Formats: sequence, structure tokens, C-alpha cells
Amino acid sequence: MAPVKKGILERLNAGQIVIGDGGFVFALEKRGYVKAGPWTPEAAITHPEAVRQLHREFLRAGSDVMQTFTFYASDDKLENRGNNLRLTGQQINEGACDLAREVANEGDALVAGGVSQTPSYLSCKSESEVKAIFKKQLDVFSKKNVDFLIAEYFEHVEEAEWAVQVLKSTGKPVAASLCIGPEGDLNGVSPGDCAVKLVKAGAQIVGINCHFDPMTCVKTVKLMKEGVERAGLKAHYMVQPLAYHTPDCGCQGFIDLPEFPFGLEPRILTRWDMHKYAREAYNVGIRYIGGCCGFEPYHIRAVSEELAPERGFLPPASEKHGMWGSGLEMHTKPWVRARSRRDYWENILPASGRPKCPSFSSPEGWGVTKGHADLLQHKEATSEAEIRQLLEKQKKAKAGVN
Amino acid sequence: MAPVKKGILERLNAGQIVIGDGGFVFALEKRGYVKAGPWTPEAAITHPEAVRQLHREFLRAGSDVMQTFTFYASDDKLENRGNNLRLTGQQINEGACDLAREVANEGDALVAGGVSQTPSYLSCKSESEVKAIFKKQLDVFSKKNVDFLIAEYFEHVEEAEWAVQVLKSTGKPVAASLCIGPEGDLNGVSPGDCAVKLVKAGAQIVGINCHFDPMTCVKTVKLMKEGVERAGLKAHYMVQPLAYHTPDCGCQGFIDLPEFPFGLEPRILTRWDMHKYAREAYNVGIRYIGGCCGFEPYHIRAVSEELAPERGFLPPASEKHGMWGSGLEMHTKPWVRARSRRDYWENILPASGRPKCPSFSSPEGWGVTKGHADLLQHKEATSEAEIRQLLEKQKKAKAGVN
Amino acid sequence: MAPVKKGILERLNAGQIVIGDGGFVFALEKRGYVKAGPWTPEAAITHPEAVRQLHREFLRAGSDVMQTFTFYASDDKLENRGNNLRLTGQQINEGACDLAREVANEGDALVAGGVSQTPSYLSCKSESEVKAIFKKQLDVFSKKNVDFLIAEYFEHVEEAEWAVQVLKSTGKPVAASLCIGPEGDLNGVSPGDCAVKLVKAGAQIVGINCHFDPMTCVKTVKLMKEGVERAGLKAHYMVQPLAYHTPDCGCQGFIDLPEFPFGLEPRILTRWDMHKYAREAYNVGIRYIGGCCGFEPYHIRAVSEELAPERGFLPPASEKHGMWGSGLEMHTKPWVRARSRRDYWENILPASGRPKCPSFSSPEGWGVTKGHADLLQHKEATSEAEIRQLLEKQKKAKAGVN
Amino acid sequence: MAPVKKGILERLNAGQIVIGDGGFVFALEKRGYVKAGPWTPEAAITHPEAVRQLHREFLRAGSDVMQTFTFYASDDKLENRGNNLRLTGQQINEGACDLAREVANEGDALVAGGVSQTPSYLSCKSESEVKAIFKKQLDVFSKKNVDFLIAEYFEHVEEAEWAVQVLKSTGKPVAASLCIGPEGDLNGVSPGDCAVKLVKAGAQIVGINCHFDPMTCVKTVKLMKEGVERAGLKAHYMVQPLAYHTPDCGCQGFIDLPEFPFGLEPRILTRWDMHKYAREAYNVGIRYIGGCCGFEPYHIRAVSEELAPERGFLPPASEKHGMWGSGLEMHTKPWVRARSRRDYWENILPASGRPKCPSFSSPEGWGVTKGHADLLQHKEATSEAEIRQLLEKQKKAKAGVN
Repeated sequence: MAPVKKGILERLNAGQIVIGDGGFVFALEKRGYVKAGPWTPEAAITHPEAVRQLHREFLRAGSDVMQTFTFYASDDKLENRGNNLRLTGQQINEGACDLAREVANEGDALVAGGVSQTPSYLSCKSESEVKAIFKKQLDVFSKKNVDFLIAEYFEHVEEAEWAVQVLKSTGKPVAASLCIGPEGDLNGVSPGDCAVKLVKAGAQIVGINCHFDPMTCVKTVKLMKEGVERAGLKAHYMVQPLAYHTPDCGCQGFIDLPEFPFGLEPRILTRWDMHKYAREAYNVGIRYIGGCCGFEPYHIRAVSEELAPERGFLPPASEKHGMWGSGLEMHTKPWVRARSRRDYWENILPASGRPKCPSFSSPEGWGVTKGHADLLQHKEATSEAEIRQLLEKQKKAKAGVN
Repeated sequence: MAPVKKGILERLNAGQIVIGDGGFVFALEKRGYVKAGPWTPEAAITHPEAVRQLHREFLRAGSDVMQTFTFYASDDKLENRGNNLRLTGQQINEGACDLAREVANEGDALVAGGVSQTPSYLSCKSESEVKAIFKKQLDVFSKKNVDFLIAEYFEHVEEAEWAVQVLKSTGKPVAASLCIGPEGDLNGVSPGDCAVKLVKAGAQIVGINCHFDPMTCVKTVKLMKEGVERAGLKAHYMVQPLAYHTPDCGCQGFIDLPEFPFGLEPRILTRWDMHKYAREAYNVGIRYIGGCCGFEPYHIRAVSEELAPERGFLPPASEKHGMWGSGLEMHTKPWVRARSRRDYWENILPASGRPKCPSFSSPEGWGVTKGHADLLQHKEATSEAEIRQLLEKQKKAKAGVN
Repeated sequence: MAPVKKGILERLNAGQIVIGDGGFVFALEKRGYVKAGPWTPEAAITHPEAVRQLHREFLRAGSDVMQTFTFYASDDKLENRGNNLRLTGQQINEGACDLAREVANEGDALVAGGVSQTPSYLSCKSESEVKAIFKKQLDVFSKKNVDFLIAEYFEHVEEAEWAVQVLKSTGKPVAASLCIGPEGDLNGVSPGDCAVKLVKAGAQIVGINCHFDPMTCVKTVKLMKEGVERAGLKAHYMVQPLAYHTPDCGCQGFIDLPEFPFGLEPRILTRWDMHKYAREAYNVGIRYIGGCCGFEPYHIRAVSEELAPERGFLPPASEKHGMWGSGLEMHTKPWVRARSRRDYWENILPASGRPKCPSFSSPEGWGVTKGHADLLQHKEATSEAEIRQLLEKQKKAKAGVN
Repeated sequence: MAPVKKGILERLNAGQIVIGDGGFVFALEKRGYVKAGPWTPEAAITHPEAVRQLHREFLRAGSDVMQTFTFYASDDKLENRGNNLRLTGQQINEGACDLAREVANEGDALVAGGVSQTPSYLSCKSESEVKAIFKKQLDVFSKKNVDFLIAEYFEHVEEAEWAVQVLKSTGKPVAASLCIGPEGDLNGVSPGDCAVKLVKAGAQIVGINCHFDPMTCVKTVKLMKEGVERAGLKAHYMVQPLAYHTPDCGCQGFIDLPEFPFGLEPRILTRWDMHKYAREAYNVGIRYIGGCCGFEPYHIRAVSEELAPERGFLPPASEKHGMWGSGLEMHTKPWVRARSRRDYWENILPASGRPKCPSFSSPEGWGVTKGHADLLQHKEATSEAEIRQLLEKQKKAKAGVN
């Protein structure tokens, strides 16, 4: 029988670093198991071997948390705009919990059940309606006895507070993570104020995930921390950013970039960018450090390697990776062997090989948010007439931007 | 019992398109199972589930060929510069064959056994010594009864000819693929002349893999085809390029780029770049179209999708991918729904998000090749003194380039 | 006899647009008459024909103000670090006034005498010492009866206030212009507060010149205007920015860029950038709109052309320029004739032709300012030992930035 | 009385370096005296002070040749597409000769009279008609007794041969310069063959001007030189390139770039680029080294400074320029003083400050040349209907390129 694992709060209270995993939706889209657009996690049922393998790779890279692959697995989201899955949210959530637990038990990792923002909130459903959706997912997490809960990927702090209030009911530790930048949530609530609200709602861990690049997310968590401390409160901090450079983003993050989601390749962070991220996050006082969309196992491994001195150990996957490129000592070509050292990789400014492409894009800021007609949830597929209308709007928005 | 599959030459002779797979070494490095530097495939034994999963993803993406994961699995390479695996080449080759066969039988794919250039050749070993190395790998392929053979990743056509001569002995179809660009092999033999030599040596399929980006590789295969036709010969053509943009490379390709191998991210091709590649390769008359380093399953899927009209079907993984981004019709944000169409993605020029990075690098051309002391194979780990010497040389080489 | 010209305040009070000239120091450096480093204006005496010609070109391009070429023409600056001119400040200032008056009288332009920040202030000389320097230049301007006075290119608002106080003594209108960005002066005084101080010191026109690109300068003047209005005061506003794009600058502007002053070419604004600048400045409520370093006559002409609808006339030089490129209708090549229209040039994103160069630099922020030993004025030439010391500091500063 | 100057051939035969001037058309367009589109040199009559000043600046920068400002001053060109000048070619050519001679006599410079390609040739006029046009300009050059003659800016070697044959009739030395790249003239005649034809037609100096950047032009002259030497002939070589980086150009050069002529700023060469150019041109064996469009006086000064060791002297304008930035020793800011050295500027990779702009453009190659209807000369202004037609063609051409 496996030894009893230390819980998430025990670890953080003891000052341990907790390394998160990467985003499953984007990684499995590239592997052929998730559809961009609906972004739903039915592969937990239809292709469990692919989901299990990705969990294993993150575990091997040093992840201490296996997040259940339940992103957007609420029933209102599953039946969005013509997505026709014939699987219930309950089935998917249960399958995902089992996979996460199976792999977590292959190491010392914890299982975290996650809920995220709902189309119902954007469609102005009532607090009780929105809470009922979270409750439904939570019932599965309770039944499957996950180790802790994460309310993540919220653009409006109000909805995140509702989620935290629901998740608190189980008594399990609750983390709350917004997908906002330094300018605050989509209603303009500052990161500091957001963090205070979440702590008051009952979250023990607060932070940021998705939508922005690592340095921007760390900066935003820093603002959250300052807010919490100014308010005389206490919390742990987490960060799970994109693995894409997003210096040209506005307040809604990478979704507004014209390259989202199928042209983001040139922005992918190198492993060396990840070293800088991990160090900066640590220096700011964040102890739950992971990733979101764009993270591949080697990105998490780089985080683990940067923090190995503090953690006292390397992850299993480092058996296949020389620190700072030292494995290149075994390369055939001598000029590649000459690259087997830290100062080479630490200072590299990688070229894009794309001379006809710019460095920055102009994000599309349509300026619509919660309650706007264009954002209302519906079950029917998008019609051609709707697309034509959207193209008109896009054309106008672009003319304004450039 | 499974129906008997059509062989590689039957398919090509019938005018069918054969879609290759992507490069395993780079994909599994990112997943944590291959070490950059030695680049050896021991994961076929140590982590078969990871290798099997990657085979499955390519099969699902439309690959008609499962190449055995035997790159650099020759005994001389396995014991290079301190790499200490305690596994024989035979073990690895056998395990790799079994995995490829297992997954190939889950679809209509063929198994190809591959050999590639040897450190022994670079170290000026004799023809019979080099051929003995190929023979040893071939014995496993014969025993495991692979469907056909590929001699790939050769920088010198002479060594490729030797490999073809060995592989021919089995009677199985033989493909030969060089890793050269339009300027020819490292001795300056032109692509056209190289192709003629390989056909005369007995290869039924000739082409290019690795080292350069898709358009450069297609251009080089075109030169090979013109050479073969000029000589009054006949062959089938294959191309398996990098998934990295390399317009700034010299004759040795991406290995000379300062970003190789840990800073290539900004160069990764999008799926839309792959559509253009697949169409161009088809138009040039190439019918065996696959990928090499940098290819992920979604890249191969894009090749399959571009050629679906000619092939008459989509690959299984397209159930999770709307053609030309049409799945975005189901996205929550209206401005993302507006991107669900071909002309949007066909014309996108993706930004890098890296304003301090350039578009082009200066490749390091040290100008050393076969026989040079720095390239000699040895078993001992690289010493600190050797590294210091290399750094001196690199410094001088860079001063000359900029 | 020439008709009496309307004064600067009459024009601005009547709501007229006043178009400034461009920076003489940079333009004449490229023509071979000013030395980068000391940047002193002795060409007013040694090569009057070159200075006169540049005045004429700006007049022809639409400038309503001829600024005397007296930048850095204070005696303390003229004898800086080994600059050995054998000309007194008085000689240069007098010669410059005569040239400006001669050309101003060829049109309807006014003559403005200018003073700028002094090495004495940076070296912590007393208020009365610094004021004495301004007074010395002012005596020439009074004798030569310039139309109004400009205190420009100040990094510290305190020194600018001193200058305004001196200039006020003549009763002539006084404009005050800082070389700061939105973050404020080098002591951290905000643009709004700076503007209030300058108005209180007696300036009727306040604004920004040099150090930042047009859009940044306009943004800073907007902050100044908001400050003045919040304080219940009134003023006119001026802006005379660089003709270089500087989005990557810190608070000290383009001097910190590694490209300053001999590698700024890729940043030069096009005439179309100038149209956007002129329109934006006008919309913000600025009515004195000119240029500084990097401006060539065609840049000022573009400002004049953009504001021609409001001004009611085109400048003389527009006889040699079709609005929005319409002169290209006469080009030989048909594809160039196709570019003879506004929407073509308005939307162009010009390529750099420099694929090995980045978009952004890392400015050198040494963080030293007024009073720091490295900034102290001295007459002797810089010694080799001093340069060696500086290189050490630069190396450290760079290591910190990247 | 001035001492008799050595002629152009005496200088070149003696192994002297001859430094040319820069392009007047572009420089005077920026100063407000030439109209882009017709590009005609009427300023020689209407604004002689501006033309004289530019001559003086180049003389001061080290130019040994004053080219008469007679570009496109043939009568067929002067009345092109609605250009309504009321000045004859003869008037302009005479005025230009007088200005060049006046300034040449202020130093040791020679006067060169120039003819260039004619609209008549593009419109398929006969050899005798085209030659008559050259003869008309030549009559002025003979009367004004210029020192030698240049036939420059020819895209078709055939027309250049005709020009050389006409110019030879005077007995004065003749230089012939094409505006082609390494791919050859617009009929595909190689640079080597072009050069042989020009030498055989009677040119003593052959080379390249305009259309491409310095390194491309030097490369092309090298090909010309190899052709001449292969043919057992002898010649002197000249090069007068653009001051714009054009690595992305096709065979017609910078005119095809979408940025031509009003968005070329980011491509302007720095003075340090000019040092590299001058050295490379010298190393290749070119001894007549100058500039064309985009060159400002400081660019020519940089050429003079690079070749000062060989020439034995610096140009007058170097009194205002420290070699390799040494004048910065006198700068106020210490971090700028730290830039007063060769290795700093020699290695700088200047940023563009334009993150939304690419490095490369897609040139518009319409593929039309001599004889095509769109290229026919006519006197009437371009009509709106013609412009609409051109826009249609442009749209199609662009769709094909991207």
C-alpha cells in the first residue's frame, strides 16, 4: 500500500515548492484528441490511453499535481453550438478523475478537480443557476475523492467567488485562479482587489492561469499578493501561465491575438525562457508553479530543473536531459558540442526564420463582454448568416486597430 | 485475420499518395524520453508505452508508414562519447520493430526499417566496416519481417549508396533519402547526380529528409527528379522535411543554426504552412510525403487534410479538427468564430511575440566534414579541455560570420 | 517694407496652427557640418550657407518658426571635453540669429531664440550660476530682437523653471519644452506637475521636444494639458518630437538606446507616420506642432499637408509632392502608378530589409543623473583610462539588462 | 587659375580610388525640390541654391566626381504623363552643367555628364530615334565641356550599348553602368556578358548603379569583371548602389518593393554598413566607388573614411566626424562616451523600433518589360480608369505572390 501523501496545504505551509502540470487541451489538440473550438475533454472517455500518457509525461517532468482533464466539462458547455458528443458531463468527469488518480499513484502527485467559467455566466444566468453547474461537477469530485479543488480560468472575479463558495462546501482545500492580466478582470477590478475577494470567499491559494505569458502572469500574481498583504490577509500563491510570448496582448489576452489558436507557433517559449520564469515566480514568493496552454512536458521539466536546488531533486525525465544543454557534449558535430553550456543557452535570442512576419500583432479588441448578445450561449450550430455578420464586425474592428 | 496489405511499391505504382510519419527523436525529446546529444532510441525498450502512443498518434493523423524507432541504433553510435546505455543495438532494434508492427496492424500502415549515417563513415572506416554495421541492423529487420527499408539521413551520397547496396540484399523495396539541400551533398555532388547514383545502386524510391524546411526539401527533390529523368531512369520520390523554417541555413542545414537544438521554437511550422508544403510536394510529383524533426501529429494531419481530395478520405484524427479551422464556429468568443474559414488562415503571417529576436541567424559553418579530427568518433566522454578548445574555435568562427 | 507679422501668441490665441521646424543638429550632422558628441552649432559661423539652406527647406516645407541654430551654444558647453572651437558663444549666437532672421523674412515665419539645459546644472552649480548662463544667451537674443523665446530640451523641470524665469525678464513670449516621457522628469515629477510648474514660472506655451517618438510625445503633452487644466490654469501646447520610433525606450529616451546616435536609421519615420502624428497632435489640442532630431524637410511638409484642410493652404514644397503619393501617377512602371493613392500608403507596414536585426533594443539605463560623478562637466578631453572604466560599467549594465 | 586636374582615366590608370557622389533625385526629393513620380531635375533651373548646396556637401564628403543633375532630363521624359514643366531639356542640362562645374572647381573634382534609359526605348522606338535623344543631351555636355560621360541606369544592355556608341563620338572617356542584379538584365543577359558588350561598344569603365543594395551591386560588378577578364578584355570598374538594404528584391530591384518610393526608411544603411561596402568594393577590385538613391553626404563620407588609408587623406567633412564614432568621447552621458570605439559600431545590429513590421517584403513582379502596353510612354496624365485597371492587376499580382 502506498504511503499517505502530504496534502496541498501541508506542502505549501511547509514552504515546499509545488509544481503544476501543463494545459491538456492544447497539448491533446496537437496530438489529435481535442477539437479546437469546443475544446471539450471527451477524450477522457474516448481515448483514455492518450490522456493517461500525457499525465505520465507531466508526472515524469516533475509535476506534483495531476489536474483532472475536466476543462469545460459542464453540461451547458458540452452542448454548445452544435457540438454533439452523446456523453454526459458526469461520464467525462468521472473518467477524467480515474485517469488522474491512476497516474498520480504512480508517483507522489495529488489529484486536483477543476471547474472553470461557464457560458451560463456570460449569458447572464442567475447566481443560483451558475452555482448549480459548479455543484454538479463538484459531486463527481467528491465521489471520486480528489485531493483538492481548483476554480480556474475566470475572467470575472464575481463568477470565481461563486465557484469558490460552492467548492468550499466540501471542506477540501480550494485554489482560485483567474485568467486576467495586470489591468484586472473584465469589469476592471484590479488584481489586488480580485485576490482579496477570493481569499474572503474562502480560497486558500490564489493566482493566475492562462491568457498571458509567464512574466506577465507572475507580475499579476505579484499585484495580487500585494493586495492580499495590504488587506492584512494571508494566502498561498499559484501561477500557471501560457507557454506563448504575449507582449502585444490587451486585457483579454491571447484569445484576441489574430494567431489564436492555430498560428501561435512562433511564440512558443523555449526551455530557457522557462528557467527565467520559474526563477522569477519563485523570487516573487509564488510556490505553486505550473503551466497552461502551450506547455509541453519539457517545459515543466525546465521549471523542475531550475528549482532543483531548492527542491533538492531532479524529476525522472531529467535522466533524458542534461542540465543547461550538457547532453550536447555527446553530439557528433563539434560546433554543437560547443553549445553544451549554460551561458550559451541563457543568452540566446532565437531567430524566427520568418522574415515576412512581424514581431507583434494587433489584438482584436471588440470590447464585448458578459451580457453582450454576441456572447450568449446557444446550442444550435453557428449559421452562415451569423458568420457573415461576424466578418463584417471583424473587418470594422481591424480597420480601427491598424 | 487482417487482410493482406498492399506493399509500398504497389501503392506508389498505382499512383497512390503515401503519407509518412514525423520524426520520433525530436517529438520524444520534448515528451521526456530521448536525450538530445546522443539522440539514441533506447526508449523503445525502456518506455514502450510512450513510443507506442506516438506511433498511434501518427497513424491517427493519416500516416501510412510506421518507421521503426531505430534512428542511430547502430552499436558504434550507441557507445558514443560516454553514452552508457547497457542495451545492445539488437535489443533496441527488435523492440522498435515490434512496436511499429503492433500499431501498423491497428490500421492499414506498413512498417519500414531504417538505417542512417554512421559515425564510422565520418571516422573514415572502410566500406566493408561501414557495410557491416548496416548489415547488423538489417538482420533484425529481416527477422522481424518489416515491409520495406529506408536508408535515410545521409550527408554523403557515397555512404548512402553503400547502405542501399546492403539493404538490397533482402529483396525488400528500398528507399534512399539524403539530408542535403539544393547545393548538394557535403562533397558537392549535386542533387540530380546523387539521385542517379542512388537509383543505380538499387533504390526504388529516392528523396530528401531532415536538415531543411519543407519548401527547400521539395525544391531539392525536384532537382533529384530532374536528374533521374535526364539520365533516362525511373524512380519514385519521397520527402520528409523538418517542421522548422530554415531560410537562413547554409549547406549543412539546421544543425549549424545557433538555435539547434534547444531554441528552434519560433521556427515551428503552423498547420497552414503544412498545407502549402503538401500541395507543393504533390505538384512537383512527389508521392511519398511525410515529415522529420519537429513534426507533431497535427502537422501530419494537415498534410492528410490537404491531400484528402486526392486520397478520397480524411484521417481518423480529423474527427477532432475542422477543415481550415471550421471547428472555431463553436468557439465562445465571436471574434474567434469569425476565424473559422480558409482565407483567414491561408493568409495569416504569424507574429513571434519576440521583438528582441531577429528573423535570421548566422549559421556556424566550420567547414569541417568527413575525416576531420573534430568529427572522429570516440567512446570516452568529452573532456573539459576539449570543450575549451571548441569554444575557442566557435568564437573565431562567429567573428568571421558576422 | 515687409508687412508686420502676427506674433506667436496672437497666432495661437486666434486658434491658428503653428508649424515648427525640424532639428538642425542631426540634419546638419548628416550633411557634414555638426559633430556628433559635442553637437555644437559653430556652423552658424563656419558654414552659414549650409545653415541658411536648411532654414529655407523648412520654411518651404511649411515651418512658421525659424529656431535660431543655438543649441548647446552656451560657453560652458562649448568648451566641453576637449572641444576646441576658438569661437565664443556670443559669436555663434549672433550669427545664428542673423541667419534665422534672413530666412524668416523670405516668408511669414517668426524667429525664436532658444536656450537648453546646461552642463552646469548637471554638475550641481547654483541657481544663480545657471541663470547667468541663460542670461548671457538671452542678451544676444534681445540685441537681435528675436520674436519669442524657447527654453527647450530640459530633463529636470527645476532647471527649466530657472530658464523660464530668466527668459521672462524680456517681456517676450516664452515657450518651455521638456525632453521627458509619460513617466515624468528625471526626478520623477509627473508631466502634469511639470506643466503646472512651468506655467506658474511664466511660460505661455508648454510642451515636449526630443527624446521620444511622436506618439509618445503627444501622449506626454496630453498629460501636461490635463495637469494644467486640473490646476485651473491656461496655456498653449507645443510638441516637437523625434522622427525615430522609440517604443522600446525607458524614461531617458533615445539616448539610452544602443543605436544612439549612429545606428538609428531603421527607426526613421516615413512621411505617412507623420500624417498620423500631426492628426493626433491636433486632435489632442496641441497647436504648435513641429519636430526635433531626425526630422528632415519632407517630414515637416507631411505635417503641413495633413493639416492643410485646417490651415487652408499647402506649403511651397508641396509643388514637388503629390498629396498621398499622387505624383506616382506619372511614374513609368505601372505597378508604381498603382501606388498613387491614400489607402495604399496609409496602411503600409514597411519592411526593414534587415533579417538579422531585431525590432526592439534593450536601452542602457545606468540610472545616473544630476550630481553623479560620471556626469560632471569638465574641459579636458576624455582619457583612455576613463573610457576603459566606462566600458567596464557598460558591460555590467548590459549583463543586467538582458 | 586653377591647376589642371587629372582626368578620370589618368586617375584610374594610376590605381587611384575615385569616389563618386550620391543620388540627387532622392536626396532633393526629401529636401523638397524633386517630385517623386516624374523624378525630373528642373530644380537645376528653379532652385539652383539647393542643387549647389548638395553638390558642395558631397564634395566636402570626399566625392571626386560631380555628376550633372540631368537624370531623366531628356525631352521625351520631361513631357511624360502630364508633367508640365515649361522648361526644355536643353535649359535644364545647361543649368545642371554650370552648377556641377562651379562646385567641382571648389575642389579637385571632375564633372561627369550623364544620360540614362529613355521611355522611347521601352516604347520600342527605333535605334536611330533613341540615339537621337542621347545625342541631344550630349550636345549640351560637349558645349559645356564636361570631363567625362556616364551612361547609367539601364535595364537593357542593348540600350546602354546604343548610348555608349553615341557618347563615344566625342572622344571623352565613357563609363557605362547598368541597374541590374546578379541575374542579369531584363532580357536575361548575364552581368558578365553585359560587361563584355559594353566594353566592346567602347566604354572604358563599366559597372552597376541603383536598384540594389551595396553588397548585391558589388557582387554583380564582380561577375562583370570576371566576364571581361574571361573575354581577354580590360576595363575599369565602378559601383554606385542604393543606400537601402534590398535582400528581398527580385531581378527588377527596389522599384518592385511595395515600399518604393515612400516607405524605404527602415532600409537606409548606416554609416557602418558603408564602411563594409567600401572595403568589399575595394577588395573586389572596383576603384570608382560611389552611391545612388538614398545616399546622403554622410554615407559618402563613410566611404571616404574607410578608404582613407589607401587614399592617404580624409575628406573635409571628417573635421566634423570622429573616425568610428570617436567624437562621442565628448558626449555628456557616460554610457554614450562608452560607445566611442570601432568594435561597438562595427558589430551593432540596429533595431527597427517597428514590431508590427516584417523584415522582408514580397516584391511585385508583374513580369512586364520593354514593349508591354502598360509601359508605353504617353504625354497625357494618367486617367482614373487607367488607375482602376492597375489596381485590379496589382490585386491579382499580390494574390499570386503571397
